[in-house]
Amino acid sequence: MSGRGEIDRLVTLLGRLPGLGPRSARRAALALLRQPHARMLPLAEAMEQAARAVRTCSTCGNLDTTDPCGICADPARDDGLVCVVENVGDLWALERAGVHRGVYQVLGGTLSALSGMGPDDLNVQPLFDRIAAGGVREVILALGTTVEGATTMHWLHERLARFDVQVSRVGQGVPVGGALDVLDDGTLAAAIMARRPA
Amino acid sequence: MSGRGEIDRLVTLLGRLPGLGPRSARRAALALLRQPHARMLPLAEAMEQAARAVRTCSTCGNLDTTDPCGICADPARDDGLVCVVENVGDLWALERAGVHRGVYQVLGGTLSALSGMGPDDLNVQPLFDRIAAGGVREVILALGTTVEGATTMHWLHERLARFDVQVSRVGQGVPVGGALDVLDDGTLAAAIMARRPA
Repeated sequence: MSGRGEIDRLVTLLGRLPGLGPRSARRAALALLRQPHARMLPLAEAMEQAARAVRTCSTCGNLDTTDPCGICADPARDDGLVCVVENVGDLWALERAGVHRGVYQVLGGTLSALSGMGPDDLNVQPLFDRIAAGGVREVILALGTTVEGATTMHWLHERLARFDVQVSRVGQGVPVGGALDVLDDGTLAAAIMARRPA
Repeated sequence: MSGRGEIDRLVTLLGRLPGLGPRSARRAALALLRQPHARMLPLAEAMEQAARAVRTCSTCGNLDTTDPCGICADPARDDGLVCVVENVGDLWALERAGVHRGVYQVLGGTLSALSGMGPDDLNVQPLFDRIAAGGVREVILALGTTVEGATTMHWLHERLARFDVQVSRVGQGVPVGGALDVLDDGTLAAAIMARRPA
């Protein structure tokens, strides 16, 4: 390595980002070091601005620069239709797809004995409050179909049964554009069970 | 996406780093946004410090926080043995391996008609000056064995012939720990030609 503190520190911190190992952290650091003014300072500034601006939406748990977030504050969104997701990354994925015109509830995790996540650790009370205040027609459970996701959906389904609200969950089956022979047995079984008249 | 400028800008700039596509840039941005004070601000600060501190060594072309760089300034390094590399990433790789106790010359590229890199674009005059000033016994050409690397080594070899200096190049052959059946024909041919008594 260079032996100089600032460069090593940059490589170390970049290497802690998800998706960047030591090798790609060095490549990224070099790319930044080669263009300190054109690339590194703008990125540093963007990080500082984002760190200062970011806040958690007290309504839904989304990360945004306003509270309530842009989605909760948007009058064009249907706040009677709440989609429950595990994290902000899932929310971003649904927004990119543009398939949900309602609002969200970001749990911040799933029930997991292994990682010690219990019902009290989920950001779910705001959802119950919203439903109790009236105006929510339907809750879509859009969690992953891992054991933890399924457990969490089951628990939420039970908790939501006492409210007068329709509860649905995302469909399971063959991904669009997906080949059957690479799918696991569970997905294939779900796809067969979810079959529809052609 | 979030629809908020600061977050989008962060994702965009992260996505321009080598090795990070849009997907991994979003993951990295989310990891930083979740811990703005514990993760994002320290990284931003490290970038600013590195951007302020980094300079190019006027002797060898290395990136460091001092000029001359720590390697050129180190009295324990053999400045009579100069290893020519294409870029700072290659220098870092050799330093990690700890296999070169001399100094370096970082060319900043290789001769390439395609990308318009000619002899005048290579950071090589400081090497000729160092040799002309005396004290350099050997120059090791440690460029990659691409067409451009081989062309550059050939050109350098010719240019260095007029100096009283020994010129060598890194050995070619089977990588340590490498299987033969995944190697290309050129490497296999080089390995056979470079055979030694067992």
